[in-house]
Amino acid sequence: MERVICVYSGGLDSTVLFHHCIKEYDEVYALTFSYGQKHIKEIEIAQSNFNELKSLHTKVKDHIILDLGFFGSITKKSSLTNTDLNLPTMKDIVGHPQPSSYVPNRNMMMLSVAASLAEEKKATHIVYGAVAVDNFSYWDCTKEFVENINNTLHLNRMNSVTVHAPVLMKSKKEIVEMGVELGVDFSKTWTCYAGKEKACGVCPSCSSRIAGFKQAKLVDPIPYEINISW
Amino acid sequence: MERVICVYSGGLDSTVLFHHCIKEYDEVYALTFSYGQKHIKEIEIAQSNFNELKSLHTKVKDHIILDLGFFGSITKKSSLTNTDLNLPTMKDIVGHPQPSSYVPNRNMMMLSVAASLAEEKKATHIVYGAVAVDNFSYWDCTKEFVENINNTLHLNRMNSVTVHAPVLMKSKKEIVEMGVELGVDFSKTWTCYAGKEKACGVCPSCSSRIAGFKQAKLVDPIPYEINISW
Repeated sequence: MERVICVYSGGLDSTVLFHHCIKEYDEVYALTFSYGQKHIKEIEIAQSNFNELKSLHTKVKDHIILDLGFFGSITKKSSLTNTDLNLPTMKDIVGHPQPSSYVPNRNMMMLSVAASLAEEKKATHIVYGAVAVDNFSYWDCTKEFVENINNTLHLNRMNSVTVHAPVLMKSKKEIVEMGVELGVDFSKTWTCYAGKEKACGVCPSCSSRIAGFKQAKLVDPIPYEINISW
Repeated sequence: MERVICVYSGGLDSTVLFHHCIKEYDEVYALTFSYGQKHIKEIEIAQSNFNELKSLHTKVKDHIILDLGFFGSITKKSSLTNTDLNLPTMKDIVGHPQPSSYVPNRNMMMLSVAASLAEEKKATHIVYGAVAVDNFSYWDCTKEFVENINNTLHLNRMNSVTVHAPVLMKSKKEIVEMGVELGVDFSKTWTCYAGKEKACGVCPSCSSRIAGFKQAKLVDPIPYEINISW
């Protein structure tokens, strides 16, 4: 019996991975982090998606939402958690080693917490949606990082947990295609940083999502504030 | 300029390490975790000790208290965070692979958070008070664990942080002796799990502390509820 903790934000990548978990494992627990993110809409969408997938698949067991609000006490500099700061636009991040939305050591903190929950739920797998960008400023979205985290977790011989990052080396186009194959309803995923009614279409998250759909020759079904030429 | 984050609980071991940090580093930040522990008294003592040490040493900079209350949402089984459960006595833990106060993956979570704060404060060192017990049920209090955590953190080339566990291989007697050498006022340290006015003298923490003082041929200056034959 293979039980998995799926780190689930409600975004496109992690929704694709939630479907991947339902396909590949026997029991799925979804773990969502609340850390004062502006796009709290993600959490609402995570909850409604979870409820829908639970009603369809008996192997979907439980949705755990954990409050990591202390992120905001560690740094006031991150536009992801400090509402006084503007989120970066595409222009702000191109060539910038660390966008303003950066929270130091976020992935290690999240995976440590996921591993704690895994041990509690007797799950031996964690699936999370890191995507490799570059090794310098995104050192915690690399194959080496996941390997090192697993080396550490495997020291726990009573409750050994393995972290998997199935889309780490995939482009957004390939993630969209993986989602199509798994039957993901993309209209129910949320990516935009801004968290308004419609996606802004200009933040780095929107930009990358739009490019992924375009490259996959698909039209993104979510509404955008700006006109997108599909 | 060597800046350090000292993971500081207010207990005996971490108070000795706080003094060690003041001796060895140029700037010291203390980091205390609040996670609904019953012995909240530790946090009050951590605060008052910090304030005293800050008034004495200009290199003591700031005390950061972070709320990891989500520990209680991960597990209801831990007597450390669930007030409905009794804390273990010495009798309960001898020969038991995992005492009821166990919180899964606690050290990795705490060190991940400490590393995040270190990056924020531009500190390159973390000092924490893990003491090796045995490798099976306390896999996260071993030399291998600290090495693996450092292997992971050193992947961050922009802000490389190193974790040090200076008392990892020391007995409680040796930690007490280290404290004597550093001029620690032991009357201002708190160890007991129970968090009452006087230390209970019977919980595993008290038992180990009392044994350490006895072996060092010293009298522990804190008040105990029971009569201790020093």
